[in-house]
Amino acid sequence: MDIQEIIAKKRDGYKLTKEEINFFITKYVDGSIADYQAAALIMAIYINKIDEEEITNLTLAMANSGDVLDLSSIGTVVDKHSTGGVGDKVTLILAPLVASLGIPVAKMSGRGLGFTGGTIDKLESIPGYKTDIDIKEFINNVKEKNISLIGQTLNLAPADKKIYALRDSIACVENIGLIASSIMSKKIAAGADKIVLDVTCGSGAFMKNETDAIKLSEMMNKIGKLANKETVCIITNMDEPLGKAIGNILEVKEAIQALNGEMEDDVKDVVLELGSYMIKLAGKGENIEDNKKKILEKINNGEGLQKFEELVQNQGGDISYIKDIDKFEKAKYIEPVQSLNNGYVQKLNAEEIGKICMHLGAGRIKKEDSIDKSVGIVLNKKVGDVVNKGETLAFIHANSLEKLEEAKKKVLETYKIVDAKTEKNRSIIKIIKE
Amino acid sequence: MDIQEIIAKKRDGYKLTKEEINFFITKYVDGSIADYQAAALIMAIYINKIDEEEITNLTLAMANSGDVLDLSSIGTVVDKHSTGGVGDKVTLILAPLVASLGIPVAKMSGRGLGFTGGTIDKLESIPGYKTDIDIKEFINNVKEKNISLIGQTLNLAPADKKIYALRDSIACVENIGLIASSIMSKKIAAGADKIVLDVTCGSGAFMKNETDAIKLSEMMNKIGKLANKETVCIITNMDEPLGKAIGNILEVKEAIQALNGEMEDDVKDVVLELGSYMIKLAGKGENIEDNKKKILEKINNGEGLQKFEELVQNQGGDISYIKDIDKFEKAKYIEPVQSLNNGYVQKLNAEEIGKICMHLGAGRIKKEDSIDKSVGIVLNKKVGDVVNKGETLAFIHANSLEKLEEAKKKVLETYKIVDAKTEKNRSIIKIIKE
Repeated sequence: MDIQEIIAKKRDGYKLTKEEINFFITKYVDGSIADYQAAALIMAIYINKIDEEEITNLTLAMANSGDVLDLSSIGTVVDKHSTGGVGDKVTLILAPLVASLGIPVAKMSGRGLGFTGGTIDKLESIPGYKTDIDIKEFINNVKEKNISLIGQTLNLAPADKKIYALRDSIACVENIGLIASSIMSKKIAAGADKIVLDVTCGSGAFMKNETDAIKLSEMMNKIGKLANKETVCIITNMDEPLGKAIGNILEVKEAIQALNGEMEDDVKDVVLELGSYMIKLAGKGENIEDNKKKILEKINNGEGLQKFEELVQNQGGDISYIKDIDKFEKAKYIEPVQSLNNGYVQKLNAEEIGKICMHLGAGRIKKEDSIDKSVGIVLNKKVGDVVNKGETLAFIHANSLEKLEEAKKKVLETYKIVDAKTEKNRSIIKIIKE
Repeated sequence: MDIQEIIAKKRDGYKLTKEEINFFITKYVDGSIADYQAAALIMAIYINKIDEEEITNLTLAMANSGDVLDLSSIGTVVDKHSTGGVGDKVTLILAPLVASLGIPVAKMSGRGLGFTGGTIDKLESIPGYKTDIDIKEFINNVKEKNISLIGQTLNLAPADKKIYALRDSIACVENIGLIASSIMSKKIAAGADKIVLDVTCGSGAFMKNETDAIKLSEMMNKIGKLANKETVCIITNMDEPLGKAIGNILEVKEAIQALNGEMEDDVKDVVLELGSYMIKLAGKGENIEDNKKKILEKINNGEGLQKFEELVQNQGGDISYIKDIDKFEKAKYIEPVQSLNNGYVQKLNAEEIGKICMHLGAGRIKKEDSIDKSVGIVLNKKVGDVVNKGETLAFIHANSLEKLEEAKKKVLETYKIVDAKTEKNRSIIKIIKE
């Protein structure tokens, strides 16, 4: 087998065998296939497409290209993953709620990059919380407390890392098959038996429209089926930010308030939908509406919050911050952005808000950048809300006057306020399951 | 302008502008575009195609990527180029004949690689002949004697060199547009005003069939037209080797004999056709049949041979070898291969014969390999010839007994001898001109 033959085959539109895909991935990771050869093959795949079987084989080959986490001692592990968004604090709320229902949650999360945030950065906003504990401790925590949330300490799917970086530099990012395979390979390497995917859709998401989000979901669903990892995809709205807070400490505070029962409607819709499917996949409840009630009960009786405290304490975090969210570090400047006119909020571009937060210091432009945990935006008005002139649209949390002023100006520009009554966005767009 | 945008455009099948193509070539040669980005773009070009205007712009960008030879002080220069073959000694015969008709021949040639030979290796078989004289001397020689044949001493079309090497490692060699652009960029950089191309076709050529040879010719014709370099393509047969000798000294001897009037029919057909078009393009004769007669006259009156001697003497070569070809170094073993049966030669695969010669030491497997000038094969029977059992098919010239025996065995296998009468191959398949 040689790489030129494999490239030529895909160049001419033929289907690659499992052996050929494994050969490519193995040799690319060990360095015997050059980046330019991988680039040519990826471009051929992009243009000539690969079918579901090829994508599944690619996914499995990438999943097996590095460490593969063995969580079998825990039992059936249902992983939850979001394709990324702005203000997406769902994991922080959902994971303890599901764990409080007796379902093990063993989750590795990522850091934020660009205009989207990352769960690990948010967790590290809690003083003391360790995201880099070793795998043994991780598994032990799950066994003892039903929950552990850590960073990606293992060398998971290195082939995906290499191919993702390459795709970025050769204009091959926007390909449903390759995106699906990238996401699924990491989940499989991270030890998931079953997967609930939050496929975000809209201006603040990778998938900008419903058609693409459905295609991606169907593809991941099929990969899951072929790879024997039952997968449910829930397409959620990311046209405006999720919930009210964007920024690390601000989102943690919103999550704690949510577990305390003060949850924004859109966040609640997503938490209940994803959670119900996690319960279903874990074999702990067939009926989705019943499952939603079980989750609501765990919010109302405080057991979800209690589980969150156990998680934080177990990983070295200071739970006094959970008990009193006023203890969290605050930004130097907190100022409102006021509406210049009366009307209804028609649009609130999530990507724009994400970028404003990034420039405030809440996010990274490059991987190496450090972040400012206290800054961000708290939205007071969302799509569908009525607004009066002078009313507060949002609060800016900034650590420099210059950035504060810039953010105020940009947030004001981002709010599209119109005369005609507008509708709230749907939180859940579609569910793709077998 | 950035390379990702350019890649994305061709990935999606759009046409690239002249500026985009120039940007790619300039930045690829200066190293600011990576090999993997070039690989992705080349693959996108391969699959989605580029049109004649894009190919011409690519050709000109590559031609201008390094040194560009200025031959304007000589006058109109008609270059001749062959796409490569086995036993192709046409330049050695044709160049002095054309020069003897008062048409300047200023030609840079290449070395052999793989199963095909190179004119420069053949010329260096003449003791003393210098192929690496400087450009000033090269131009002076042409002005004084109407002829100079040298190696590629300049940095001609470095972009083509980089892209060619890349194409080879990413399975993007067999693309008519890219092949055409590679050939034409080198000719344009070498200072040609008008170009006669010998497009070889058959088992011993890059183009294995007539359809591809025609496509390539039409493409080069169009590039020539768009680039304002009048181009005629003559598709010639390379299913069996050209003439009788294959190997460096052996081919030089055949060329000298040809200039002495003893020319094989197929060689004569190609020499006359190419030469007549060179005369026509140089503006020295409109009628092709008349031009052929002019060339024949230069063979018959010895002026072609005399011009060859001038060429050799002018570049430091020892012309006593031209006057007495028996002086040339001979291989240690010269042995016949005898036919095992009666019949007609039906096939004599040129690539096979080329490979046998290469293994005898006449050619290079890698660029760095040295070659053995005295070894090779002299064919006694060609396609269409009648053969009796025990008759000599060919002579092997070898410098080791082991290689001699191996070559004898393989040459015997290569001759396909059948009972039914067979036809000689056509030498000239088609002429593609405006």
